[in-house]
Amino acid sequence: MKIIIVGGVAGGMSAATRLRRLDESAEIIVFERGHYVSFANCGLPYFVGGVIRNRDELLLQTPESLEARFALDVRIDTEVVEIDRAAQTVSVRNVLTDEESVEHYDRLVLAAGASARSGTSDSTIPTHTLRTVDDVDHITAVLAQADAASAVVIGGGFIGLEAIENLVLRGVQVTLVQRGPQIFTPLDPEMAAPVLDRLRERGVDVRLNTTVTGGSGNSVELSDGTTVSADLVIDASGVRPDVTLAERAGLRIGESGGIWVDGTQATSDPLIFAVGDGVEKTDAVSGSGTLVTMAGLANRHGRSVADSIAGTPEQAAPAVGAGIVGIFGLTVATVGWNEKRLVAASRAHRIAHTHPANHAGYFPGAEGMSIKLLIDASTDAILGAQIVGGEGVDKRIDVIAVAMAAGLSASALTRLELAYAPQYASAKDPINQLGYVASNLAQGTSMTLQWHELAEARAAGAVLVDVRSAGEFAAGSIPGALNVSLEDLRERLDDLPKVPLIVHCQVGQRGHTAARILTQHGFDVRNLDGGYRTWLAGTVTSPILERALA
Amino acid sequence: MKIIIVGGVAGGMSAATRLRRLDESAEIIVFERGHYVSFANCGLPYFVGGVIRNRDELLLQTPESLEARFALDVRIDTEVVEIDRAAQTVSVRNVLTDEESVEHYDRLVLAAGASARSGTSDSTIPTHTLRTVDDVDHITAVLAQADAASAVVIGGGFIGLEAIENLVLRGVQVTLVQRGPQIFTPLDPEMAAPVLDRLRERGVDVRLNTTVTGGSGNSVELSDGTTVSADLVIDASGVRPDVTLAERAGLRIGESGGIWVDGTQATSDPLIFAVGDGVEKTDAVSGSGTLVTMAGLANRHGRSVADSIAGTPEQAAPAVGAGIVGIFGLTVATVGWNEKRLVAASRAHRIAHTHPANHAGYFPGAEGMSIKLLIDASTDAILGAQIVGGEGVDKRIDVIAVAMAAGLSASALTRLELAYAPQYASAKDPINQLGYVASNLAQGTSMTLQWHELAEARAAGAVLVDVRSAGEFAAGSIPGALNVSLEDLRERLDDLPKVPLIVHCQVGQRGHTAARILTQHGFDVRNLDGGYRTWLAGTVTSPILERALA
Repeated sequence: MKIIIVGGVAGGMSAATRLRRLDESAEIIVFERGHYVSFANCGLPYFVGGVIRNRDELLLQTPESLEARFALDVRIDTEVVEIDRAAQTVSVRNVLTDEESVEHYDRLVLAAGASARSGTSDSTIPTHTLRTVDDVDHITAVLAQADAASAVVIGGGFIGLEAIENLVLRGVQVTLVQRGPQIFTPLDPEMAAPVLDRLRERGVDVRLNTTVTGGSGNSVELSDGTTVSADLVIDASGVRPDVTLAERAGLRIGESGGIWVDGTQATSDPLIFAVGDGVEKTDAVSGSGTLVTMAGLANRHGRSVADSIAGTPEQAAPAVGAGIVGIFGLTVATVGWNEKRLVAASRAHRIAHTHPANHAGYFPGAEGMSIKLLIDASTDAILGAQIVGGEGVDKRIDVIAVAMAAGLSASALTRLELAYAPQYASAKDPINQLGYVASNLAQGTSMTLQWHELAEARAAGAVLVDVRSAGEFAAGSIPGALNVSLEDLRERLDDLPKVPLIVHCQVGQRGHTAARILTQHGFDVRNLDGGYRTWLAGTVTSPILERALA
Repeated sequence: MKIIIVGGVAGGMSAATRLRRLDESAEIIVFERGHYVSFANCGLPYFVGGVIRNRDELLLQTPESLEARFALDVRIDTEVVEIDRAAQTVSVRNVLTDEESVEHYDRLVLAAGASARSGTSDSTIPTHTLRTVDDVDHITAVLAQADAASAVVIGGGFIGLEAIENLVLRGVQVTLVQRGPQIFTPLDPEMAAPVLDRLRERGVDVRLNTTVTGGSGNSVELSDGTTVSADLVIDASGVRPDVTLAERAGLRIGESGGIWVDGTQATSDPLIFAVGDGVEKTDAVSGSGTLVTMAGLANRHGRSVADSIAGTPEQAAPAVGAGIVGIFGLTVATVGWNEKRLVAASRAHRIAHTHPANHAGYFPGAEGMSIKLLIDASTDAILGAQIVGGEGVDKRIDVIAVAMAAGLSASALTRLELAYAPQYASAKDPINQLGYVASNLAQGTSMTLQWHELAEARAAGAVLVDVRSAGEFAAGSIPGALNVSLEDLRERLDDLPKVPLIVHCQVGQRGHTAARILTQHGFDVRNLDGGYRTWLAGTVTSPILERALA
């Protein structure tokens, strides 16, 4: 059997090495249009910042090492330009010599990944992407030449944030140009607010609702009419699946724009398979086709396509789309859908915001985090989560991702036994606490209101009661709230107006107890979800609401 | 409704506060025989070591604060001495005044926890336990008086290890007296070996197969005939459920010795409920009654017993028994059953050992960990796991605990989408890698041999082939192994004897590739699970094997 693999990084190389382990006699050729195979693409930004010091660390394998260990025929600088499905051949071109040749295949694996989307309308601006070893070589060369260098980063997504952190680490003055009203759009706005704060604290000039419209020399012009200095422009606007070859060969393209594959990674041609960022996945929340351009899935599907070709196919699991990024000491993690997407899809949902510490508060070094959980209103299924904070964020997003993939309900998070000692967690882990909130919502024990629903509820006559202490209230409160501390509440029931009440505390927990007391005394009451802290993040720091309230 | 709760720490106080939130009108009395309620019992060792500096940090609530916020009637220094089930009353005694009284109940919740087992046969030795605020007050008083203090800790379990770390932090010279041949028995011996190493590196005098037989003044006598200095003896031999009250009241006691309860925490008397360390849980692996004395379960069942009493019972999940402990920079975590227990129960199982890094190796600061997974041989269910290492151990044990609780198979670990960026994880997360090993075992793609099976296999004629590089081989190898590096293997097939082969590398991964090559060339071959590293931990460092090999 002769197998040709197009693309020699994550998915392609996982497929090649697994194929070899399954079939010692197969002929396996890997074509890679770049000069490097199996390189550490997720490490590239950190080489720019000097966090990874040695360029060789990025180069995990060479054609020679892959030949020696896996008997692979790896051909770099070689682009596959055409697939002839009838003849079962590919036409390849050496990008250095322009020499062309034709190779027959018994099975073909497409793992060409994605290509960068452009974030500017002006194609004359010399932008850099941050996707290959060549890219970082170019970027570091530019930075090495510039004194007191400045850079514009287009797009505050995963790669944009990593680029910014690493440029700042190198002393570069950075402007972030964000097309829409919010950075890091996988988050909802109140969850993105602390990320924006952190960027600004660290001196990043963040321009929202802005695009790059032109540029010359060492500056670029922005749609807000200003000109900013930029020795370097990094375009991190995102990627689109590279489907050129597949499309030309008449393979089916999915609804999301990625190459369509079945659960075994087979395309519409049973002899051709595809994996990685170029391929459509099945969304775990909607069941529809979706794009998830994460290294983990590329590697995993690369391995499983080898099993498919070797005759022991397995079905891929639907994708939950877990992602994480570190930015100036904050960890930002997401899985599944966010509120914006659920609202846009008119999917009925419940929301829980919590603000736990990563471990027991009495143990030194506890760090806070904010968690948002999205829950199906009819099935109690977990639809997504967002976490922003310090230590322990990565653990909790993984726990939720596993619970979601395993089909556990949000209420079932209460029952998870998570390993506890005070330096690692709490006896009631943040995940259990989240489950408690979710199960109270599911049972109707708790009625909540979201931060963005507060203004409308008050306009309709609801009265806001802040149940924190007088000291907390004095340090900062929601304008117009009454202050009755939880400890005084039972004695001051008569002081409260007989209208719909909204109670709140700092993070939502005392508010819940207050709501339980008031409900049982006949009041119509809802608890402001996530308390003062979520309200503050949503309404004061969030650029969207900042404008809405102005 | 009048509810009496016996015990005011984890489970009892969770029950009391949840009950109040569910029922504003209930009369709720909490009797606590100690002087403190709702204290940070898991923080106690860290107060001894000075990690937690302020004693008040341990005292999370007071009767006054619980009265103010939750309208609870909390009576400290008050012991419940008798239950009269027919009359629905309890007799209580004030331990300071000896005053007795009787209280009626509509529902009774037993949350009295566990009591310490004694680790010495000589009851005249003044030992301390480490379970209450009074205990740490006594211990710190002794240590404050002693110059260059010395201590004996009996038992190297969770509390024993925490006690040792904190005593060493205070400059105390510590002897650990361990009854059996292995410290920290939740682990299997090859997994416990690095923990023993770490203790000895840090100057702890570890005495295995030893007991305390006597003592006088500032020293104790050990069963090995020696006498060691001990200003302080901490008995951390473990606990047994405190079932005195329940037993006297004629309540059913479970097979494990804990109070029997159904899934709603009801005892054999429908008006009496029980939660916490005194109660038998259902084991997730066997379905039998078991004891799991973890704070997490106590809190959780405390909350759910409130729902049972309030008329909205839910069924408890079977217990997987996740636990974690930090010891001198090592994190040690377990869930489910270990190999020893599976062997004792004759339960057919598979084993996978891996030695991954916590995050991408090219990102600075990667730390290694060792993972052991126990798998049901017929169903591929996850039966247990053990992890020892640095950063990221706590995350991986939680991921496995959730997968286990959710009923995911070991092979399904391959499909988990875990959040990846290079400072947090690897594109193939340690958990995915573990799944790959497990699925290779399930499919028969990989045949492995355990470290403790090697000697017997070689005695029967198998030849051991070390496929690491010549340099690695020279730096240390298993006596008598042939060295043929993986890279040379395909060319040196003719040099290998036509007998059963066992291949190994450093951690098992290259060994797997070598085994695949050899199998396909007709050899009878098995891969040494976990490679040289697991073999070394099992045979050289492990005290059990050390003696067996001597």
